[in-house]
Amino acid sequence: MSLIAWPVPVPDLPADVHPALADAARAASAAYGVIRRSHGRAALAEEVGMGADGTPTMRVDAVVEEAIAESAQRSGVNLLSEEIGFLDHGSALTLVVDPVDGSANAASGVPLSCFAGALVRDTLPAEALTTWLDTGRAWWARVGHPTAFRTSGRTRLAGATVNLLRPKSANRDAWLRVADRAGRLRILGTTCLEAILVAEGSVDAFADAGSDTLRIVDLAAALVTVPAAGGTVIDARGRALEFDPDLTRRWSGIAAATPALAEELAATILG
Amino acid sequence: MSLIAWPVPVPDLPADVHPALADAARAASAAYGVIRRSHGRAALAEEVGMGADGTPTMRVDAVVEEAIAESAQRSGVNLLSEEIGFLDHGSALTLVVDPVDGSANAASGVPLSCFAGALVRDTLPAEALTTWLDTGRAWWARVGHPTAFRTSGRTRLAGATVNLLRPKSANRDAWLRVADRAGRLRILGTTCLEAILVAEGSVDAFADAGSDTLRIVDLAAALVTVPAAGGTVIDARGRALEFDPDLTRRWSGIAAATPALAEELAATILG
Repeated sequence: MSLIAWPVPVPDLPADVHPALADAARAASAAYGVIRRSHGRAALAEEVGMGADGTPTMRVDAVVEEAIAESAQRSGVNLLSEEIGFLDHGSALTLVVDPVDGSANAASGVPLSCFAGALVRDTLPAEALTTWLDTGRAWWARVGHPTAFRTSGRTRLAGATVNLLRPKSANRDAWLRVADRAGRLRILGTTCLEAILVAEGSVDAFADAGSDTLRIVDLAAALVTVPAAGGTVIDARGRALEFDPDLTRRWSGIAAATPALAEELAATILG
Repeated sequence: MSLIAWPVPVPDLPADVHPALADAARAASAAYGVIRRSHGRAALAEEVGMGADGTPTMRVDAVVEEAIAESAQRSGVNLLSEEIGFLDHGSALTLVVDPVDGSANAASGVPLSCFAGALVRDTLPAEALTTWLDTGRAWWARVGHPTAFRTSGRTRLAGATVNLLRPKSANRDAWLRVADRAGRLRILGTTCLEAILVAEGSVDAFADAGSDTLRIVDLAAALVTVPAAGGTVIDARGRALEFDPDLTRRWSGIAAATPALAEELAATILG
């Protein structure tokens, strides 16, 4: 059994995070820490079912999501999550959560995965929290309140640092067009953490280069955090990004330091 | 000025690391921590000269390397390093060091960069230490002594998790051949840390897919650590990997969980 050797710290949360969001983030770290101490890499990655998003559920996703579902019940808020779908607890508030963003990393030991959640009132997002599971670093943002961290402010793709999803056969040409123009290129395999790197100005943009892979749970926290830091989140094909409980809906999300950079990325992807 | 907000911890080193290697690693973390608190991202990335390897030197590289050079002088060992080249202190021992592997990440705030060093007696490596600057995690290995961490043991490319350097125009076809066969694909932009992920079994392989980008300082620690963990490091074109003070020499290094996987990667890269 190949255990991941490193501990999972308690996330270091800002004081003002909504209690329901904070409790969910702490529950995620605790559950991931427990399963990582007791299950090897193969067991963490084992597919244990089919998620509400139409993709297979890894054990690590299922275990962490269960802890978050218990947290949402304790807090009395609804939950919209990757595998379980929508849990209605009769509240005006809904946690929209990716329990373990970067599941493959989390299961294999690549230390790049996170909890990402947005708190939505009716259909309007109010705040978001992203916690890097391996380090406990946390980023929090409230709609309408600028964050202390800021995007890089870059406006042009030429020379930009761009993070992408891996190329697939259907979007290879679009992917290569972006790759050719980017100054630096990364594939970290953790959409929510990559969007945070955009928000804090460490990379200029993150994009799904037209493969229509991303669900609302992948983008929910970014939709609050990146604009609060001065950037923007759009769909490459111009579709509205909506907090819809139908998790089979997909987008080619772009998180960028500025609207100009986001639009240039979209135009490059569409060719 | 866009400062990177996070602190740089003291690395958590095993007790048996050679004092010269341990001191160099601590010096690297301390210097990176200081420069990151006082200089913004643009200043960290600013090119301040031309390195012995024939590529421009960023300020972050120069500052950390200077601290390591002072450490080597204190310890009385020679130094072979990315920018400064070979410093002869008349010792039989030489530290072969990449002061900041993943310089672009280190300068921009992507939390994926490391100190990586091998201690070489005459031309034979004795031990190696890699420390992840953002977390203080450390991996140490001695030649001829198996490490506690082990590679994944994977022997086939189909379905493997492979980390690559970004594609360049000269090796695009080779890069895409590898990408097409890999189960998962990552570009982290930090060769030494990616080799460590191979050694600890978190990814199956890391490769420069034929672009001949890597220098001996990029591969020195991996050449000790990956074999001690059950894997192998080779050049895609079969050239010997030598501890040569000529830093303009380049290789297409492959670090893999097993010799079989390394050979399949080399064959795929050569087409």
